[in-house]
Amino acid sequence: MLKIIMSQHDSIRAVEWKDNHLVLLDQRKLPHNEQFVALYSADDTAEAIRNMVVRGAPAIGIAAAYAVVMAARKSYKQYPQDWRQRLTAEIETLKNSRPTAINLMWALKRMCAAADTIQGDPEYPLLALAQQIHQDDIDANYHMGELGSALIPPSHGVLTHCNTGSLATGGYGTALGVIRSAYSNGKIEHVYADETRPWWQGSRLTAWELAKDKIPAHLLCDGAAAHLMKLGKVSWVIVGSDRIAANGDVANKIGTYSLAVNARYHGVKFMVVAPTSTIDLATLCGNDIPIEERPQEEVLNVSNQRIAAHHTQAWNPAFDVTPASLVDALVTEKGVIENPTAEKIAALMAS
Amino acid sequence: MLKIIMSQHDSIRAVEWKDNHLVLLDQRKLPHNEQFVALYSADDTAEAIRNMVVRGAPAIGIAAAYAVVMAARKSYKQYPQDWRQRLTAEIETLKNSRPTAINLMWALKRMCAAADTIQGDPEYPLLALAQQIHQDDIDANYHMGELGSALIPPSHGVLTHCNTGSLATGGYGTALGVIRSAYSNGKIEHVYADETRPWWQGSRLTAWELAKDKIPAHLLCDGAAAHLMKLGKVSWVIVGSDRIAANGDVANKIGTYSLAVNARYHGVKFMVVAPTSTIDLATLCGNDIPIEERPQEEVLNVSNQRIAAHHTQAWNPAFDVTPASLVDALVTEKGVIENPTAEKIAALMAS
Repeated sequence: MLKIIMSQHDSIRAVEWKDNHLVLLDQRKLPHNEQFVALYSADDTAEAIRNMVVRGAPAIGIAAAYAVVMAARKSYKQYPQDWRQRLTAEIETLKNSRPTAINLMWALKRMCAAADTIQGDPEYPLLALAQQIHQDDIDANYHMGELGSALIPPSHGVLTHCNTGSLATGGYGTALGVIRSAYSNGKIEHVYADETRPWWQGSRLTAWELAKDKIPAHLLCDGAAAHLMKLGKVSWVIVGSDRIAANGDVANKIGTYSLAVNARYHGVKFMVVAPTSTIDLATLCGNDIPIEERPQEEVLNVSNQRIAAHHTQAWNPAFDVTPASLVDALVTEKGVIENPTAEKIAALMAS
Repeated sequence: MLKIIMSQHDSIRAVEWKDNHLVLLDQRKLPHNEQFVALYSADDTAEAIRNMVVRGAPAIGIAAAYAVVMAARKSYKQYPQDWRQRLTAEIETLKNSRPTAINLMWALKRMCAAADTIQGDPEYPLLALAQQIHQDDIDANYHMGELGSALIPPSHGVLTHCNTGSLATGGYGTALGVIRSAYSNGKIEHVYADETRPWWQGSRLTAWELAKDKIPAHLLCDGAAAHLMKLGKVSWVIVGSDRIAANGDVANKIGTYSLAVNARYHGVKFMVVAPTSTIDLATLCGNDIPIEERPQEEVLNVSNQRIAAHHTQAWNPAFDVTPASLVDALVTEKGVIENPTAEKIAALMAS
């Protein structure tokens, strides 16, 4: 059973283990339908990750951890002797469900390492680990919330991109966790949220979370962020990450890099909030991060209705990479790094 | 009768005078419905400008010029003696239909000055002037097309924002006119077009024009432009303008300024293409340009369907201002200014 630590501005959980299966809040249906999906297998979970029923790097990792529990249970039932070997295909399917977010690989690695040491029925020991990964993520988010909040001067506006809240994590959120904490601490007066094309994470998810938690916010079109900064409306841009390379380069939702360039130009600070499970020391720099290209229909259509002219193609990279040189603060559960470098990140990870 | 000069890559006209009235291609219905609206009065034309049946600074100016013809005709019929005085209210309504684009004020000023000198029935002399304004705009666009094309190195990609084509002008286009000319001249291999939220001018209008004229293009989300530049896919960003201040600051569709900041960061060149009717010497600098804020529903809804979460507000500035310091080339029908300054612009306007 997960420890419940839900504060005043934290009322949503999108990934849950219920009795013997995984339950996901279907993020494709939000904000108008709060519909849950029950999953009983790893393959179905991989499909849910691929189709973005669940999204957000930490949430994907947690869902995958629970998927391993279900895969091991099935495997153990069918092949009590060599259930570990029989897991391989399902682990591979999970690994390939989204290429950019590293938390997925991190969670699978931890679950597989634990599976290697288990004697007898693996379901409950693996479930305990998945729940620990889930709980650790929430705890990390609360801790990062306070660390990030401490960096923000009082009475300011901030800008965020995509969704990094309870929906994107085990709960509370990374960048949105910092915003929740900073709002609770009276640091933030107003939140500006990019609508985040093409998947509308800002309009559909972040705005929904902020409205639920009664945090005052305005949506804006992604292209309007530079004008917002010029008007002096925000002191920080606060974002999450899908993978951070060893040198501090940050992969995150498409549009993040443009914000970082504009933030530097306008003297606005740029904060990345991510648990250390997002840092991948095996990826040396941003150029080595695979950038998922998603179907062009995500750009050409809205709600299955064609918006764009016919005979038109679209280019739809799902992520971009912000160089470490544009990051003013990297907030992790192990501490804050200002102006991240390979050396500072190596020291943090070794601590 | 307008002189027909339509080249291979120029097949669309959105503003036309037919017999005794104005015909507009309804840009709200594109790309799926090519529907024309017939207008018989200045008030209806003002309403069409306000509601964006017609949009694009030069096209608005031309539509307003034809509206003055209809207003003068009505006024002369009712009050043959003091028809000029009776025009005032309708001119005011036209002036107030969109605040940012200066071509509207420019065209009204020219029409009113002509009205002041007319003896007898004003309809035909005013129609002749409106048609001259229309024809001059097309001629200017063809000329700017060649001037802009000359700046582009061969075999490159370019990025554009919003719609600046035949739909936004008398015909051919400003920035899209340069793209048409450069494509005809073998300078451009591929066009990238921002979808341009919230009104989708890129997806609905620019993509439609490019497909009609068989110019190869990809749409992208506005936030993806920085990533595109980083990948080296474009050598120039080419945009139009709604008003250029005396010092060279450029008001244009929201999202333009973000592109200019990113272009400078990536060493990509930034070109503004606009007839001199867009330059307003009475506006000293960008801060003096009124920025229209449009209804938040344009951000919250798509095709009258709610996208954003309920209880959410949106901030919807329709334009932003790019400082002259970020403009590498300003292309007008009177010539090209590199790195525009107040002095260079004053000299151009006096030439």
